[in-house]
Amino acid sequence: MTPIITAFERSPDGGKGLARDMHVRWALEEAGQPYDVRLLSFKAMKEPEHLALHPFGQIPTYEEGDLALFESGAIVFHIAERHAGLLPDDANARARAITWMFAALNTMEPPIFDRDLAKVLDRDEPWYEQRLSALEDSIRKRLSDLSSRLGDADWLDGAFSAGDLLMVTVLRRLQGSGMLEEYPNLSAYVARGEARPAFKRAFDAQLAVFTAASTG
Amino acid sequence: MTPIITAFERSPDGGKGLARDMHVRWALEEAGQPYDVRLLSFKAMKEPEHLALHPFGQIPTYEEGDLALFESGAIVFHIAERHAGLLPDDANARARAITWMFAALNTMEPPIFDRDLAKVLDRDEPWYEQRLSALEDSIRKRLSDLSSRLGDADWLDGAFSAGDLLMVTVLRRLQGSGMLEEYPNLSAYVARGEARPAFKRAFDAQLAVFTAASTG
Repeated sequence: MTPIITAFERSPDGGKGLARDMHVRWALEEAGQPYDVRLLSFKAMKEPEHLALHPFGQIPTYEEGDLALFESGAIVFHIAERHAGLLPDDANARARAITWMFAALNTMEPPIFDRDLAKVLDRDEPWYEQRLSALEDSIRKRLSDLSSRLGDADWLDGAFSAGDLLMVTVLRRLQGSGMLEEYPNLSAYVARGEARPAFKRAFDAQLAVFTAASTG
Repeated sequence: MTPIITAFERSPDGGKGLARDMHVRWALEEAGQPYDVRLLSFKAMKEPEHLALHPFGQIPTYEEGDLALFESGAIVFHIAERHAGLLPDDANARARAITWMFAALNTMEPPIFDRDLAKVLDRDEPWYEQRLSALEDSIRKRLSDLSSRLGDADWLDGAFSAGDLLMVTVLRRLQGSGMLEEYPNLSAYVARGEARPAFKRAFDAQLAVFTAASTG
């Protein structure tokens, strides 16, 4: 059965692959699992039909027969459990890879996401520079810790895993900020993720949606 | 083998059970799994010995023989996978329970955590009231969506699961704000979680640590 995911009809990131359907597209491409996409307008995301799938009215969702899931982390995990290549077989290594999934979404992402939000919502406030600077201090603390842990390894714990997939997608939000470049091993880590053929296929697929919406 | 978790020597929440060791203690109590606790000072959390266990220098960690984990979500999941009662057996129901775990930590928690942070860090800033109000608007949007989804059910999806455990721990951070009371089904949901004997044992255990530290 071909799973169906939802994505933005017109992503607010301008096709940079920062919306959360990218996490799921990338995981499906790593897994070699074909999928269909249903595109949603911002209006449709808040309508009862979509709220029945996603209680918070967001994207992505994942439908596969009787199963309907939301939350990109949970969807990536579901895919990773059912296909080779995203979670190690060894029980302890698997638990550690899952730890990095949660670390990406619950420790690294919040201040990075807040910075993106502040750049949109608070830009004209008199305290904008102060707020941005505080957020960037928090982000740098996390990046510094992550950089120390990664060291000169290719991936966070042995082979590439769903933990790396989520961490790379979270760190990509910092591109253009200059912060990632302060930690050369983290820049190289993100570049290593982006160089994976599955990443490229996922990226091109989301970009094609944006391009079609912009020229259509 | 008895697992060992780490917790604050003196929790900044004054024994309210809001620190993240509470998530893990509660899961271990639901699972009927005895555990040991190693208490850490704020200084010790940033020292190399602890950073080897937790790259971001936080609590909790979880050690069990050769395995060392961090991130409360990942630790709760590890416990839930190995013991009955925290994840359903049916594959689809299990995937949905895991979805609620990620939703608690990646969708509900960030604005709630930010509000707690703002109340400590930004209280004397000229823009404090504006920032607090914006955060509370975000939180109310999420609470409203969650309340609609929960309806008059006891738990988020069928029987109590690790998804409920994490959601209740996250919502407890709002106690005293008055916001939870705006959604009576969510207040009742949190109360239902707190009434579980395993919650009470976990709560009492973390409170005993705080009380000992305060009177010692």
